[in-house]
Amino acid sequence: MIDEEICPADPWQVRETRLETALLGPMESVFALANGFLGLRGNLDEGEPFEISGTYLNSFYEERPLPYPEGGYGYPEQGQTVVNVTDGKLIRLTVDDEQFHVGRGVLHRHERVLDLRAGVLRREVDWESPAGRRVTVRSVRLVSFTQRAVAAVAYEVVAGDEPVRVTVQSCLAADEEQVRVSDDPRVAAALGDPLEAVEQDTEQHGAVLLHRTRRSGLSLAAGMDHVVEADAGYDEETDVRADWARTTVVTVLPPGGRLRIVKFLGYAWSASRSTDALRDQVAAALNGARYAGWDGLVAAQRAYLDDFWDAADVEVDGDPALQQAVRFGLFHVLQAGARAEGRPIPGKGLTGPGYDGHSFWDSEGFVLPLLMYTVPRAAADALRWRYSILPHARERARTLGLSGAAFPWRTIGGEECSAYWPAGTAALHLNAVVARAVDRFRLVTGDDALELDCGLEMLVETARLWVSHGHHDATGVWHVDGVTGPDEYSAVADDNVFTNLMAARNLRAAADACARHPEAAARLGVALEEPDVWRACAHAVHVPFDERLGVHPQSEGFTRYAPWHFPQQRPEEPLMMLAPYFQLYRRQVCKQADLVLAMHWCADDFTAEQKARNVDYYERITVRDSSLSACTQAVMCAEVGHLELAQDYAWEAAMVDLRDLHGNTRDGLHVASLAGAWSAIVEGFGGLRERDHEPGPVLAPRLPAGIGRLRFRLRHSGVRLVVEADHETVRVSVREGKLPIQLYGEDVEVTAECPVSRPVVALEPVLPPPRQPPGYAPRRG
Amino acid sequence: MIDEEICPADPWQVRETRLETALLGPMESVFALANGFLGLRGNLDEGEPFEISGTYLNSFYEERPLPYPEGGYGYPEQGQTVVNVTDGKLIRLTVDDEQFHVGRGVLHRHERVLDLRAGVLRREVDWESPAGRRVTVRSVRLVSFTQRAVAAVAYEVVAGDEPVRVTVQSCLAADEEQVRVSDDPRVAAALGDPLEAVEQDTEQHGAVLLHRTRRSGLSLAAGMDHVVEADAGYDEETDVRADWARTTVVTVLPPGGRLRIVKFLGYAWSASRSTDALRDQVAAALNGARYAGWDGLVAAQRAYLDDFWDAADVEVDGDPALQQAVRFGLFHVLQAGARAEGRPIPGKGLTGPGYDGHSFWDSEGFVLPLLMYTVPRAAADALRWRYSILPHARERARTLGLSGAAFPWRTIGGEECSAYWPAGTAALHLNAVVARAVDRFRLVTGDDALELDCGLEMLVETARLWVSHGHHDATGVWHVDGVTGPDEYSAVADDNVFTNLMAARNLRAAADACARHPEAAARLGVALEEPDVWRACAHAVHVPFDERLGVHPQSEGFTRYAPWHFPQQRPEEPLMMLAPYFQLYRRQVCKQADLVLAMHWCADDFTAEQKARNVDYYERITVRDSSLSACTQAVMCAEVGHLELAQDYAWEAAMVDLRDLHGNTRDGLHVASLAGAWSAIVEGFGGLRERDHEPGPVLAPRLPAGIGRLRFRLRHSGVRLVVEADHETVRVSVREGKLPIQLYGEDVEVTAECPVSRPVVALEPVLPPPRQPPGYAPRRG
Repeated sequence: MIDEEICPADPWQVRETRLETALLGPMESVFALANGFLGLRGNLDEGEPFEISGTYLNSFYEERPLPYPEGGYGYPEQGQTVVNVTDGKLIRLTVDDEQFHVGRGVLHRHERVLDLRAGVLRREVDWESPAGRRVTVRSVRLVSFTQRAVAAVAYEVVAGDEPVRVTVQSCLAADEEQVRVSDDPRVAAALGDPLEAVEQDTEQHGAVLLHRTRRSGLSLAAGMDHVVEADAGYDEETDVRADWARTTVVTVLPPGGRLRIVKFLGYAWSASRSTDALRDQVAAALNGARYAGWDGLVAAQRAYLDDFWDAADVEVDGDPALQQAVRFGLFHVLQAGARAEGRPIPGKGLTGPGYDGHSFWDSEGFVLPLLMYTVPRAAADALRWRYSILPHARERARTLGLSGAAFPWRTIGGEECSAYWPAGTAALHLNAVVARAVDRFRLVTGDDALELDCGLEMLVETARLWVSHGHHDATGVWHVDGVTGPDEYSAVADDNVFTNLMAARNLRAAADACARHPEAAARLGVALEEPDVWRACAHAVHVPFDERLGVHPQSEGFTRYAPWHFPQQRPEEPLMMLAPYFQLYRRQVCKQADLVLAMHWCADDFTAEQKARNVDYYERITVRDSSLSACTQAVMCAEVGHLELAQDYAWEAAMVDLRDLHGNTRDGLHVASLAGAWSAIVEGFGGLRERDHEPGPVLAPRLPAGIGRLRFRLRHSGVRLVVEADHETVRVSVREGKLPIQLYGEDVEVTAECPVSRPVVALEPVLPPPRQPPGYAPRRG
Repeated sequence: MIDEEICPADPWQVRETRLETALLGPMESVFALANGFLGLRGNLDEGEPFEISGTYLNSFYEERPLPYPEGGYGYPEQGQTVVNVTDGKLIRLTVDDEQFHVGRGVLHRHERVLDLRAGVLRREVDWESPAGRRVTVRSVRLVSFTQRAVAAVAYEVVAGDEPVRVTVQSCLAADEEQVRVSDDPRVAAALGDPLEAVEQDTEQHGAVLLHRTRRSGLSLAAGMDHVVEADAGYDEETDVRADWARTTVVTVLPPGGRLRIVKFLGYAWSASRSTDALRDQVAAALNGARYAGWDGLVAAQRAYLDDFWDAADVEVDGDPALQQAVRFGLFHVLQAGARAEGRPIPGKGLTGPGYDGHSFWDSEGFVLPLLMYTVPRAAADALRWRYSILPHARERARTLGLSGAAFPWRTIGGEECSAYWPAGTAALHLNAVVARAVDRFRLVTGDDALELDCGLEMLVETARLWVSHGHHDATGVWHVDGVTGPDEYSAVADDNVFTNLMAARNLRAAADACARHPEAAARLGVALEEPDVWRACAHAVHVPFDERLGVHPQSEGFTRYAPWHFPQQRPEEPLMMLAPYFQLYRRQVCKQADLVLAMHWCADDFTAEQKARNVDYYERITVRDSSLSACTQAVMCAEVGHLELAQDYAWEAAMVDLRDLHGNTRDGLHVASLAGAWSAIVEGFGGLRERDHEPGPVLAPRLPAGIGRLRFRLRHSGVRLVVEADHETVRVSVREGKLPIQLYGEDVEVTAECPVSRPVVALEPVLPPPRQPPGYAPRRG
């Protein structure tokens, strides 16, 4: 367990105060660096010991057959698994005759710092070899936000009081050995040696290795280049083989003497271009990096992040752990999406192989909302990726016997990779979540161009999907049957409230978009009456309600099901590891917020009292075995006035990885939960919402006792907004231009000249704070 | 397609008039011989050409891992697949220099006859070799009903007008090559070479081969012995290797001269006994066979079958195809179950590898009812097998978080082998079907001993299962949620009417049995109040009814679902091969009778008008992609007065294999459908039913116009009953003792001295005959 001692709260950095072998895995994920194109896990420079060694290129995957003991029509036949590509972060050090290894000799000091403002991972080690030779090793690693294909490491060895012979081997290594076995379905599939050597190239101060995946046929180039400085003479040479390259620097350092190597890494991959082209692309990337130089890369990284924080920072006074965690989350969301540029944002970002590196609805549902308010270009890029896989989604819809497009539940390349349809194909709601992201992008950024570019077509195709799957009963009510909502402890249910309301919004959004762009709609073959059909379905949508209990059943009949028998002790593992789906699916137990998420995302469809009663009902049966639950519970608990409970949920969402709350951070970070922590604070305590038909945001800040002051920055409709609240007053300002807002229900305009201040409007909760099942109260550090 | 020309209707035999290569596969199944312990497919004596070569020993299986691309708690990890064991039916013939093969030279005549009274398969071939040598080959094959471990072949070669050198090689062959690939989930999994040679033994006129399966560790002994007669001198020798043995007889026959070889086969297997013991067991079997001699075996076979037909025959005047088919079905049901003796009755009997050789609910649901009325000892044995796997069923229930016992959906050895839980584990109804068979056995045979022996415990444990899975809602109504009824085009549904009614009967039957045997119940730990709880659940069971349509929804909400869009042309393949479950599960389309089966098996729970309306409703949406549907539709169509439609369904059920109606007869016969054909006639046109609390059967014969006279024999409560009906009169007689019956609602007693005659009571149907979906009307030859 990562704790406050090993990883103390600090507003702008994550610092590891000592090395715990048991925490290697999760810390590799916590210290991962990425820019959306390239990701390096926080492995030790010298490679070993490690839990999972990882270097990832967004969308670079290998295929594998999916074997079904009992197959079915439309089951995906090929899986896709992210590949650990050629490892360039590897720098081995030999001190006199001893290979540097933290487990041998004496580790006098170990510290690693992820600097959230500088965007670098710093490490400092004071080590004494078994033979008594002492060195200090300092490294600084970065994956550049400004040069997409580039990473770099500044690696420094300083001799102790005696002269030492120092040999540094800076490597590229393909097909590294990985020894892991797991039954957990959330873990990645094991690949053998996915990379096949194609060509190698030795450069003046480095090398380029070219590989190809065996089945998916993707080509990869990885290159390294070096700049060496030493306080003594040194030799440098480079050796290259099919699966590895090694630049070796040897020197004898005088006492206190220093060897410093800057290693530049360049990566390129392609499904179609020649390896010659890739080799040249990597050489160009390395040239660019060398031209900028280490200091240039570091400065550009800082400038990029200054700009990011300027419009994204969240300040939380009174809760230092939450303060650290929300910035940690913002940083990693940026790392996941910044330079994805037409590629997906995977569930784990580029921090680990969990979930095979697949992208889910998490991206549009939880990550993009944050990016829209902070790095809108990255959000647009992610939506363009979604658009790029529309042909696959159309084909999938045909396979399913449906019209329009059915986006994949999990994928890298666009093909459906979910091998369990009740929790994959049946989760049709993801299409409405994509539609919501498209629509919301326009509302938040004020940018209409993306809709015309690609959003409209996705809205239209998803609307068509809903019409073909839903149906009107004999009384004219419109139903969506046999689907799986967000809660994965229910499946193949009828009239899931979340799905139905989201489908209705999808249908209306498509109709509205067609009205905004009639010519483009006509070009897409939208018949004149089609939007009327969409609106009619949306209008007639069935929303089950349990009159007896005064709450919404998650799906038709849900509140009639048997209760789950919670033991007095919370079990160690998620319920899905302890009970069959057969039992879970028809019990009143929720893996994650489902109806509660509907109340967040379809806020207008519920009265305040319904929200209060529903929160109360579902709090008692939700176990949060999914990391995508706490953030939503935080937002809705805040909305109905359970502010302290909301703070606990915000903490849980934010600390999911900094405290490894789900025990699987080693497989990669929970990027959507980290984004959700932002949502918990900004949408929960800030009350931020969007209105479907009005410009400008809705705000209604209300803080829990434990947070003295909250300040957050956003981009909205092209202006930068700052919201500052304490327990008495709220102040909203913009940095340029003007913005209409709704503050506690009052419409006001904020201009650069005139910030708006208002007293906080308190809210009396309808019900007292609810209890959770035994052992399932939100965790609080 | 098998047709009337190739396979003409004949009351007591199935005759193949010529050899069609395309029909090799289905005819191998049609001509399979078995006794419930040992099964030989109807392969040609010389082995080739073949579609599937098959020799099966009941419950002799190999394990194979079940790989899930996305696993889940409680998924079975090991599959079981029936093994094609050492082939002893193989007899190769060389005529001069030419190996006899029906595809070479000229086949002047070919005929095979399955004799349903003699219980043998006869073959006669007149063949001219490519070199112009002509021989007649006659073989008669039997699998003995009276010597369980024994099969035999009398093989005769007669020379034509010229002398010929004849070499007969009589073989044992293990791990035969099988070349088949299929995506169809109903087909068996491919095993490599499952048998590993252990030991071989050469006998005076034959050999014994001992093998062991590689994973399941079952041991097998197969032996052959020969008696040779020839119209000339001959040489005989035996060769043995690890995986084959060969007894060769060489002679030169004069014109018209004859060589006759009787081959005796013996088989034994065990999971625990030594191979030495098995070798001796096979030797003993061969000795027994040799001692009886060919004529002795044939005579015993005839006597056994005479006794069977005496109490089982069904005579159908006016429909020769149906007449033949119902006897064919009776014969194969006998072959499947006669000597199973503590082993299961697989879905395909021992006629082919389809469904991996697994046993399903078909056995208790469709096959045992027939056996109870005809070979009650075999029915008792099958129930004892079910009882023997109770420990596995208890363990499975624990895995599922349930009390009592959950029998496996498909298995050989008792462990659940279903790799798709929505159509396996979720089909909880199978437990109630087992309970029904237990209870019905007592009602039909009048034998209480089996209940005390093992039935009570199964009733109690299944009752406990239902109580633990069902639950009472807030208003006290008892529900069974998230289950899959018989219709496999719906799954994970709530309050399936069939399941709920059957569960209620299961609960009541268990309570009644405990009342009959209070001491035995106490020994099983049945608490005093437990049966009251069972009755209370049964009493409060929810039976959904659609007031608007006046019909029962198959499951809660079913009649509200979207219709299935039937094309004008019936598709070539079952819908499950053309559409994903995701679409099928929430549409109003039924693979097979479900609600209609509930009306057959839980007759008292429906009014006559409900039955008529339900039949009418479900006829329009049932596609019979399962072979287990037509028979039930026949019974219920007959009950509601659609007698001609019932006859068509009876024909379809009966001819499923004789016309290969599902296109997969080559994988084995549809034993339950064949049993269902009997049910269609005897329960449909004969109106046979049982009463839960009264002794003696209910009868109400009503014949369709196409059947002039129906006569069927049964065993009931220890007496032999004969029912004879035409369109005017019904006559019921018993051969000994007396039997109370209910005839058209009138209680009468039939005695050996006083048969009962009554005029037929006609029935006016409530509704006109319904239509089926386009192309799905029952097939009529």
